[in-house]
Amino acid sequence: MSTQVCIIGAGPSGLLLGQLLHDIGIETLILERSSLDHVLSRVRAGVLEQGTVKLLEAAGAGGRMHAEGLPHDGFAITCENDTHRIDLAKLTGGKSVMVYGQTEVTRDLVERRKDTGGISHYEVEDVQLHDFDGDKPHVTCRIDGEDVRINCRFIAGCDGFHGASRRSVPEDSIRTFEKVYPFGWLGILADVPPVSHELIYASHSRGFALCSMRSNTRSRYYIQCNAGDSIEAWSDDQFWAELRRRLPPETAETMITGPSFEKSIAPLRSFVAEPMHFGSLFLVGDAAHIVPPTGAKGLNLAASDVHYLFEGLRGHFLERDTDLLDAYSSLALSRVWKAVRFSWWMTTMLHRFPEQAPFEARILETELAYTLDSEAMKTALAENYIGLPY
Amino acid sequence: MSTQVCIIGAGPSGLLLGQLLHDIGIETLILERSSLDHVLSRVRAGVLEQGTVKLLEAAGAGGRMHAEGLPHDGFAITCENDTHRIDLAKLTGGKSVMVYGQTEVTRDLVERRKDTGGISHYEVEDVQLHDFDGDKPHVTCRIDGEDVRINCRFIAGCDGFHGASRRSVPEDSIRTFEKVYPFGWLGILADVPPVSHELIYASHSRGFALCSMRSNTRSRYYIQCNAGDSIEAWSDDQFWAELRRRLPPETAETMITGPSFEKSIAPLRSFVAEPMHFGSLFLVGDAAHIVPPTGAKGLNLAASDVHYLFEGLRGHFLERDTDLLDAYSSLALSRVWKAVRFSWWMTTMLHRFPEQAPFEARILETELAYTLDSEAMKTALAENYIGLPY
Repeated sequence: MSTQVCIIGAGPSGLLLGQLLHDIGIETLILERSSLDHVLSRVRAGVLEQGTVKLLEAAGAGGRMHAEGLPHDGFAITCENDTHRIDLAKLTGGKSVMVYGQTEVTRDLVERRKDTGGISHYEVEDVQLHDFDGDKPHVTCRIDGEDVRINCRFIAGCDGFHGASRRSVPEDSIRTFEKVYPFGWLGILADVPPVSHELIYASHSRGFALCSMRSNTRSRYYIQCNAGDSIEAWSDDQFWAELRRRLPPETAETMITGPSFEKSIAPLRSFVAEPMHFGSLFLVGDAAHIVPPTGAKGLNLAASDVHYLFEGLRGHFLERDTDLLDAYSSLALSRVWKAVRFSWWMTTMLHRFPEQAPFEARILETELAYTLDSEAMKTALAENYIGLPY
Repeated sequence: MSTQVCIIGAGPSGLLLGQLLHDIGIETLILERSSLDHVLSRVRAGVLEQGTVKLLEAAGAGGRMHAEGLPHDGFAITCENDTHRIDLAKLTGGKSVMVYGQTEVTRDLVERRKDTGGISHYEVEDVQLHDFDGDKPHVTCRIDGEDVRINCRFIAGCDGFHGASRRSVPEDSIRTFEKVYPFGWLGILADVPPVSHELIYASHSRGFALCSMRSNTRSRYYIQCNAGDSIEAWSDDQFWAELRRRLPPETAETMITGPSFEKSIAPLRSFVAEPMHFGSLFLVGDAAHIVPPTGAKGLNLAASDVHYLFEGLRGHFLERDTDLLDAYSSLALSRVWKAVRFSWWMTTMLHRFPEQAPFEARILETELAYTLDSEAMKTALAENYIGLPY
């Protein structure tokens, strides 16, 4: 087999890149280790920046998002019992974000790829990347039990933190930066109306909480939990009770609860690998960087990587200009680090850290109080939340 | 002896409080452990916020400051070889700071006190604070070798970090927050024209540096040094060479050097004691809190404490209204913590920390790059630098 761009991973970044390339006539092949059902069952982020929205539109996958997604032009931060609204639209000159689940984004992109005749293989085994230090790389794998070799010009590693792409790079060619936070997020999905039509980020002495939603009838709630907690230790009742304690009383009182149909604990980590470009291999999204979910930046960063890589590949294939492609890693990383900083800052400021020195704890309380008190700081928060420009 | 307000310490905060009270007819007595010559020889900060300028004017001590001080409506931050200007005036709607040495402020306040007949005692020994848990406190000390008891209504502890006032408070009545930074500032004074007419804060891989001035012919320069460095290890030549290395070449080349006439190493520390009010005793300025000099907040915080305490004492004595005085600690501390946060942030972002994890180091680099790139963040920086409102 052969293709121009072999894309490893059929998550939203691989599918989005594949669609953008496919639509301008660049050949792509997508290889995914999991089944389509499994990919579509993964529950992930749900807040899209305007840049991500535009990329999905450009890929012809914006229809259902605009019909069913919820545009949000603000959110709330609560501090113990006080509620402060961050007016995104006012602070950023009219910009907003779109609440639309990553699962739905993936589904729309899968549909779109099918409709336009793009090829994706699922349940692909033993994916290996070869010779990407030169300009004739190839990928080997097993598809439907058969050994396959795929010759290509470029490989896009869109296969996430645990995927094969980053691990194929020799260790001494890559520099990694990492921070593991000493807590996790316990999250549930429940078919109850959200407590508020906007997201609520709750800073509380008992720990952080987040009230989010997937639709007007489906809520996504999180509470900060201990790093070592097991999911079995948290009944639905315990979850709802703890969430209520961390919200202002007037909010907690109006919250409608119900049985969860998804419940999981996610660790919080910041991770960046540098560079994101090795010969003919480009790392995209979670394959190169992970952010804690606090700033809702994971999917959006993957989308901005896709933007830079798409522009680079278009230049290479259609305009015989490799400048943008050569600059991919530095362009992408510049924006990645800003989003990593923002996610780290939101996480640090809104959570409670075990064993934190009293000085540091008070500094973080002050940082939050000052942020909520200063138009300039609220503007900085808002401009990061809606997404820094590409 | 007796007085209404016994002020411990004749630094700028004690003198400023004393003058404001004296001018509205409230009796004060100032007790200072050092000699007048020693007080006037202390080299300290030199950047005054507008609030501080106004308080000095209100105390009748603004004449020479306005004649000889240098209004600054901006400063520079350099990142390795790049220079970025922070346009304070533009970012804050026309506000500025005043460069005028603390030594000069003290001298003007000493003159003013003498001219208006206020009483200060210098070289006072064995100052002890008594019975300040009730409303009839007194102070004992030795003046000119003679044991003295001073009855008063209130005591203002303006005697600095190492003074008697804070130490007189039982340990279990006070909560302290502290951070000691793992480096110091090596500073010199030299009679050479400043390299720039505005301050330059230099972030460099070799460490922080600051180019400041006392006048158009007197420069004040600092470089980050190791915490354990001794002053003898730094000749003037070594100092100038190291300072040059940390500045952009075009700046370093134009710097005029000369013999230093003052050279010292200061440790960097953040410290806050809570509360700042114990019965009839009020702590003011360095007696209650210390900030690293990076944000130029030490003297300005002392001035804002003086503002809150003066308004409280005026209410008590002239209007028989104790609300403001009762609120002194919470009003002062709210502003103190914001300035402590700002000083910590500037210090953390601009210095190089030994043994810092690569992730944290990169986050701080990104924080600085983002700050210099974002109008919102530059506005936040500027509004803190010119001083948050009282």
